[in-house]
Amino acid sequence: MKLEEVINRIQPLDQTAMQEARARQDTLTKPQGSLGRLEELSIQLAGIMGKPIPAIKDKVIITMAGDHGVVAEGVSAYPQEVTPEMVLNFLAGGAAINVLARHVNARVVVVDMGVASDIPANEKLIVKKVAYGTANMAKGPAMTREQATESILSGVEIVETEIARGLDIVGTGDMGIGNTTPSAAIACALMKQPPKEIAGRGTGVDDEGLKRKIGVIQRALDINQPNPNDGLDVLAKVGGFEIGGLAGVMLGAAAHRKPVMVDGFISTAAAMIAVSIAPQCRDYLISAHRSKEHGHGLMLDWLNLNPLFDLDLRLGEGTGAALGISLAEAACKILAEMATFGEAGVSEK
Amino acid sequence: MKLEEVINRIQPLDQTAMQEARARQDTLTKPQGSLGRLEELSIQLAGIMGKPIPAIKDKVIITMAGDHGVVAEGVSAYPQEVTPEMVLNFLAGGAAINVLARHVNARVVVVDMGVASDIPANEKLIVKKVAYGTANMAKGPAMTREQATESILSGVEIVETEIARGLDIVGTGDMGIGNTTPSAAIACALMKQPPKEIAGRGTGVDDEGLKRKIGVIQRALDINQPNPNDGLDVLAKVGGFEIGGLAGVMLGAAAHRKPVMVDGFISTAAAMIAVSIAPQCRDYLISAHRSKEHGHGLMLDWLNLNPLFDLDLRLGEGTGAALGISLAEAACKILAEMATFGEAGVSEK
Repeated sequence: MKLEEVINRIQPLDQTAMQEARARQDTLTKPQGSLGRLEELSIQLAGIMGKPIPAIKDKVIITMAGDHGVVAEGVSAYPQEVTPEMVLNFLAGGAAINVLARHVNARVVVVDMGVASDIPANEKLIVKKVAYGTANMAKGPAMTREQATESILSGVEIVETEIARGLDIVGTGDMGIGNTTPSAAIACALMKQPPKEIAGRGTGVDDEGLKRKIGVIQRALDINQPNPNDGLDVLAKVGGFEIGGLAGVMLGAAAHRKPVMVDGFISTAAAMIAVSIAPQCRDYLISAHRSKEHGHGLMLDWLNLNPLFDLDLRLGEGTGAALGISLAEAACKILAEMATFGEAGVSEK
Repeated sequence: MKLEEVINRIQPLDQTAMQEARARQDTLTKPQGSLGRLEELSIQLAGIMGKPIPAIKDKVIITMAGDHGVVAEGVSAYPQEVTPEMVLNFLAGGAAINVLARHVNARVVVVDMGVASDIPANEKLIVKKVAYGTANMAKGPAMTREQATESILSGVEIVETEIARGLDIVGTGDMGIGNTTPSAAIACALMKQPPKEIAGRGTGVDDEGLKRKIGVIQRALDINQPNPNDGLDVLAKVGGFEIGGLAGVMLGAAAHRKPVMVDGFISTAAAMIAVSIAPQCRDYLISAHRSKEHGHGLMLDWLNLNPLFDLDLRLGEGTGAALGISLAEAACKILAEMATFGEAGVSEK
């Protein structure tokens, strides 16, 4: 599989399906437009799936883990061993994403994209380890261009496998100690913004930690000079394996006309890489929520995405995406299950 | 049952349960506070139910219908017969609230609080008709003080019946052509604001209709002079039967330590009546969403409630409350089901 083939397969939304969905919304027993964002969402989903009455049954959250060499610079409040420990927590079903995925009846797919240690073999864990963590981007490129491509193509492959198993919507999730640092660096590179406009406290660094993090991002940008017109270059220079993997999930989903519920800060950085590589994939993305992480709102503006929730979440894992998936399912049910004015014998205006 | 007894029964939240819930949140495998509003919500629910690990299983939406004499002034885009027609739609399961309640696995309880016509007998319909619609508040009081009390006590009785059947959370919903007009009038009376600051387009009146509506509300306030220090007087002078009923649901739920998910504009007006009558009931209320209806944000500020969603909804029926109930359930599951750092063997900061 070549990345170019995936990109070329991504088609515009189905305008006819969208018009039919809009027309049906306007016949349902409610004032026109009174379900606001739910109506808009149902129409986008119609366009994505190419069906005037789209349905969401099989829901999948793909949570990708990776480590980051840049943690050597002291950018995170937690030690690096938390990455594999949390992967084990995902596999055991005890993490927030497990709880919320069960709540919305989604399955969680856990992927090792590049954790710095070996995780004991587990039939539920997909291993696509590109390397044992990225290199320290404050001293040189995080990965090679070949590794960047490999991470994206692994994401495409994983989502294609899940589509074959049954997938009507996919949510993105991440785990990786230190990964708000490369995510912020990606945003800075693509948006040409200084790190202080984007970087936040991640899992909870203090004022001094935040200052150090901003300095580290600036050094990574200065040393690597990522090319803002080349998403693959940005991913290679200042990205991460799980971020590349998630960009691949988005591109692969879009290529197969499947909607993507984008989680928070890290997933949005992945979305920026995906959209840089294939701008037409943007219409397949739905932003679940505005993270509490500084700069996330600007990144969503750059993508022209309007988040569904604003619940001060800053956990990642796909937690916001799980909640968003439930809203997308509700939006489809409104379109499919509500009575029309005619059917219900309700008078119109 | 006397209203005073209900009011006296409403106790402060259980601070011990809230402290225990907060302490448990801080041991779960996530950075402290990283689930934002979901964590806050779980703690409020602990305080409401008086349990350190609250659980939500039985979910109920109470949707109350009533008609309004003020529609004679041409304040709505829809004819009055839509109220009973939509009640039949609720009973048949074809309305938006039915779809969303099914989505979140809640049962819908439909109540005729004062529809202007007789609705054919239906075992699923609870009839608590105070009268065949309110009087035209632009010409005098919408109802007597006795009718206002009756509407509230009916709401208390209905929620108590549902609690006996099994109820862990109740969502409020409304149906009543013209009811954004009394709701706005209630807010104006209690907040001492002019109608133009509060009134909106309801189901969709045009500019001229909105101007007329604002004038009608001003006339109702001028003629009736509702006393802002007496919630029952405000309800009687410029309220509605379904609004009084919903205020009663809130008071009754609070008296039994049950959380209330408050829907949009009309439910928020009912919440203002409930809080005017018994200020301590406020802590039992959760605002589901900020409605697109003008003035709703100001009403929520007055109540000191912070809505969970902002999805441009303006339908009522309890649609926003249904979505909010799902979030409340998720918040409880996070607290109950997530592993602690110790249980999962995950390293701390």
